[in-house]
Amino acid sequence: MVRVMATGVFDLLHPGHLYFLTEAKKLGDELVVVVARDQTARRLKREPYVPEMLRRSMVEALKPVDKAVLGSSTDIYQTVVDLKPEIIALGYNQVWNEHEVQSECARRGAPVTVARIGPMPHDDLATRKIVERILERARKEASA
Amino acid sequence: MVRVMATGVFDLLHPGHLYFLTEAKKLGDELVVVVARDQTARRLKREPYVPEMLRRSMVEALKPVDKAVLGSSTDIYQTVVDLKPEIIALGYNQVWNEHEVQSECARRGAPVTVARIGPMPHDDLATRKIVERILERARKEASA
Repeated sequence: MVRVMATGVFDLLHPGHLYFLTEAKKLGDELVVVVARDQTARRLKREPYVPEMLRRSMVEALKPVDKAVLGSSTDIYQTVVDLKPEIIALGYNQVWNEHEVQSECARRGAPVTVARIGPMPHDDLATRKIVERILERARKEASA
Repeated sequence: MVRVMATGVFDLLHPGHLYFLTEAKKLGDELVVVVARDQTARRLKREPYVPEMLRRSMVEALKPVDKAVLGSSTDIYQTVVDLKPEIIALGYNQVWNEHEVQSECARRGAPVTVARIGPMPHDDLATRKIVERILERARKEASA
């Protein structure tokens, strides 16, 4: 059984997330998703709108996902060592370098293959865009 | 096979939606969700942030949901006649009256039992709350 691991913040769930997870699942038999802790999201990206426990439960409710767990807030590689995936799927906009991830996992005794998932065709609704839309509408309402 | 129907806008998916759909699914064997058209949402509630096609695909990606379809933009009962559910599940904050829905469905030749799903215990993150959180943060950032 080939275990695939994918990671992310998954703040406001949108079709781009679903595409990424559906494609990741196709790489193996079981998809385990590591949902970033609030603390990690804050450090790497921005404060999430939805707390980590709820982000985890929403991700686990998606059909392609077999299991969703919260990541480590201190050492992102610890989760790889714990879960021992054969494959790690990276999203098109995730900053890690494939080769660095592969080397570091191998060094820790948890060798993996890293695959990059491309962007969703015609994706026009990332979390950022949803937030922009909400702010734009509030501005219009305020000036009306 | 008992078909259950549930309806809603499902704009920014949150745990309250998931709870509602999980409970609705328990009432039968198959859960079909009717996702409100943008036009209907606009009329009954407010302009959605996420367009109807994407709202439909996100709802259908949730584990408790067997199928998600877009509703009629003119006659909400037409979908009941088309789908012929045995049970309609209403959310705790959906405005329809159980008895009126039952009577109208019976009158159209599509008799149903209407069940009301209670609120999620400790639900503190409806779409409205998420939007408030986004606006609040933008205000803080603007005044910082």
